[in-house]
Amino acid sequence: MTPEPCDLSATAARAALAAGILTATALAESCLARIAAAETELQAWAALDPDLWLAAAARADAHGNTGPLGGLPIGIKDLAATVDWPTTCGSPIYAGVRAPFDAAVVTLARRAGGVIAGKTVTTEFAAFHPGPTRNPRNPMRTPGGSSSGSAAAVAAGMVPLAVGSQTAGSIVRPAAFCGIAGYKPSFGTIEVTGVKPYATSLDTIGVLARTVADCRLFVSAVSGVPLGPPKDLPARLGWCRSPAWPAAELAMRHAFEVALPERMRAAGIEPVEIELPPLYDEAMQAQRTIMAWESARCLAYEADAHGEMLSPGLRDALAAGWEVDAEAVRAAYAVRDRAIADLPGILAAHGVGALVAPSAPGAAPPFGEGTGSPDFNRLWTLLRGPCVQVPGLDCPATGLPLGVQVVAPQGADALALAHAERLAAALAA
Amino acid sequence: MTPEPCDLSATAARAALAAGILTATALAESCLARIAAAETELQAWAALDPDLWLAAAARADAHGNTGPLGGLPIGIKDLAATVDWPTTCGSPIYAGVRAPFDAAVVTLARRAGGVIAGKTVTTEFAAFHPGPTRNPRNPMRTPGGSSSGSAAAVAAGMVPLAVGSQTAGSIVRPAAFCGIAGYKPSFGTIEVTGVKPYATSLDTIGVLARTVADCRLFVSAVSGVPLGPPKDLPARLGWCRSPAWPAAELAMRHAFEVALPERMRAAGIEPVEIELPPLYDEAMQAQRTIMAWESARCLAYEADAHGEMLSPGLRDALAAGWEVDAEAVRAAYAVRDRAIADLPGILAAHGVGALVAPSAPGAAPPFGEGTGSPDFNRLWTLLRGPCVQVPGLDCPATGLPLGVQVVAPQGADALALAHAERLAAALAA
Repeated sequence: MTPEPCDLSATAARAALAAGILTATALAESCLARIAAAETELQAWAALDPDLWLAAAARADAHGNTGPLGGLPIGIKDLAATVDWPTTCGSPIYAGVRAPFDAAVVTLARRAGGVIAGKTVTTEFAAFHPGPTRNPRNPMRTPGGSSSGSAAAVAAGMVPLAVGSQTAGSIVRPAAFCGIAGYKPSFGTIEVTGVKPYATSLDTIGVLARTVADCRLFVSAVSGVPLGPPKDLPARLGWCRSPAWPAAELAMRHAFEVALPERMRAAGIEPVEIELPPLYDEAMQAQRTIMAWESARCLAYEADAHGEMLSPGLRDALAAGWEVDAEAVRAAYAVRDRAIADLPGILAAHGVGALVAPSAPGAAPPFGEGTGSPDFNRLWTLLRGPCVQVPGLDCPATGLPLGVQVVAPQGADALALAHAERLAAALAA
Repeated sequence: MTPEPCDLSATAARAALAAGILTATALAESCLARIAAAETELQAWAALDPDLWLAAAARADAHGNTGPLGGLPIGIKDLAATVDWPTTCGSPIYAGVRAPFDAAVVTLARRAGGVIAGKTVTTEFAAFHPGPTRNPRNPMRTPGGSSSGSAAAVAAGMVPLAVGSQTAGSIVRPAAFCGIAGYKPSFGTIEVTGVKPYATSLDTIGVLARTVADCRLFVSAVSGVPLGPPKDLPARLGWCRSPAWPAAELAMRHAFEVALPERMRAAGIEPVEIELPPLYDEAMQAQRTIMAWESARCLAYEADAHGEMLSPGLRDALAAGWEVDAEAVRAAYAVRDRAIADLPGILAAHGVGALVAPSAPGAAPPFGEGTGSPDFNRLWTLLRGPCVQVPGLDCPATGLPLGVQVVAPQGADALALAHAERLAAALAA
């Protein structure tokens, strides 16, 4: 059976577009057909206008689908400002509101030839209050958050690429729960301008896609940073339960401790156990302190002018941010700086440049019980390095996906992607 | 002669408000009278609505002018989003456009009891294309940029406090040219959310005021960071021509090399000469590379959608940013990181914790010839530490102010402010 164009990876679709055997219009139509079939159940989209999408696709076709993303449809998390669609940030405060500009990532995706498909559902201001989106792998489960719609849309074949953002675990976790790839690049790799801030020193723009190669394609195209594989990829890869391990569920414990090392070894990848020093437990807590302090300030306007339209949980979280002591946040930044500085040496002492860790405590929780815990993501986001969610492990009991992520020090994105790509192949084998 | 309320320092006005011998309304009326007298010549304001200002002042009076800024009028650089006034960013692209939210600094200033006066003129997107504002010390001169209106309004007694932002030299330089104080705190001290980005890793929010104490009052109030003086202030203060020294004009050479050390010694402050290693010349160049790369991305939407409404100079600068090589910007970030890491040790080796350096190449250039060079500010902004412009030196030939700045490593804001306050007293003596 020939796959539908909408089921092609971005890399495969791009090759077909470049070869002239697929048009951006045909690809858009295939995606729109998938959306028509699945959106009522999944509710991945906050704003979608087929005419706008098809017009952009027609323009891309007319320009020969040039550029590294030429002709590829891209979903935009509804936290990123857009002129052509409302930008609600998942909040009734901004229902129907149009921004006077596009976020940088939208413009950069267009420059690279991408076709903007529409806006995907975000949790309220990228925090924890969920939107209506369901998990395509099991609609009784959450897709995770905050990039809920981006993860679900990509997993369901509605678009091959969707922009996400991560402050604690908002790219890696939903990608893991939906069984797809996700990539939070090093902090600052993709310009954040125009994406509603939640915590300025943590917010990072990234992508959700069906393959690691697709993640690389998108981030390289919009950032201008080459992310091609290093010449030699070492067999050794760090293997780290991470400081959040006590929160790991039984399914994740088995997958991470038994299935993952087995599959790695079978593919010639040597897991090297790394136990991080206590500084990294402190760092995980520092992420909470910093996020609380910064989010109270980033959303001060919304709290003061429209507090009654915030979810009670977010209102409380922002209020708690005002209780954080200035000295405590100063200490938290200092812990972060030391943890960032020490990480390359810790990895080098183990003879590795990157490591694999769980992406989440387990599989996606039931729909209606929140979007899951970001505790396995906080530390790595704080450390500002690349985090690449790798799909391929499933829970034998439920069939739900269980994610692992390859992480590396700040700037080692090409290495992390190469490790993740090899690991994805190993897990798919 | 009794000073007009509008000529009081923020600290003095605040004391009078707290004591109930001045009302926010009377202060606003005094400021508005000054504006009525001088605005036609100076053109410091991009948006001003006396009724809005007086209504906010009346509310502050009704609430007893509580809060650390209770009842004080504050000008907001027209780069910061506001619901109640248009936010043009100094560009015709956004003429008359209202943001759907207030920038964090606006909300935080209101929370602290401040009365928002209106929007002050910025250069185009905080770059170099000047607005119409004149220098109150000599209207045939530029007030500097990009916080042109904030500097002029404060210098002219129109408001005691005005928000500024600095990416290269946009707070310190205009404050120096207008003969007032200015303070760019450590990167991230004041939440940047809602202020139009120019270069995300450099943009820093700060304040222009007539005294160093006023700067401390404002930044402490809106950031929640205590900035009170350290217990002991050492007599020694670094004295550094800085890597931009070849660009110093004759008047600055004399002021910095002769007048400044004399006045310091007379006040018991011991200048300790510091020559920075060549890494800091590289760092100054790295700031250019980083600013070019990031600004091209931050303003990608404006360039692509409204390029014909950009000034030719900015259009060219943004285009040049796309020519910067990814490897070059990566190297520039690495130079920055080393320069930040090394600075505390260099100062410690000289037995000092802060240093004084020129704020600008010389006095304000003639109006119509740009807003002056930020070359004496680039390095310090890149290094992310506090920069406190200290007024008090004048050019003997022209009578125009010549500024010097106290700078310190990231986080040493309280020390820098204390040094700056003592130095300001020495220069006023």
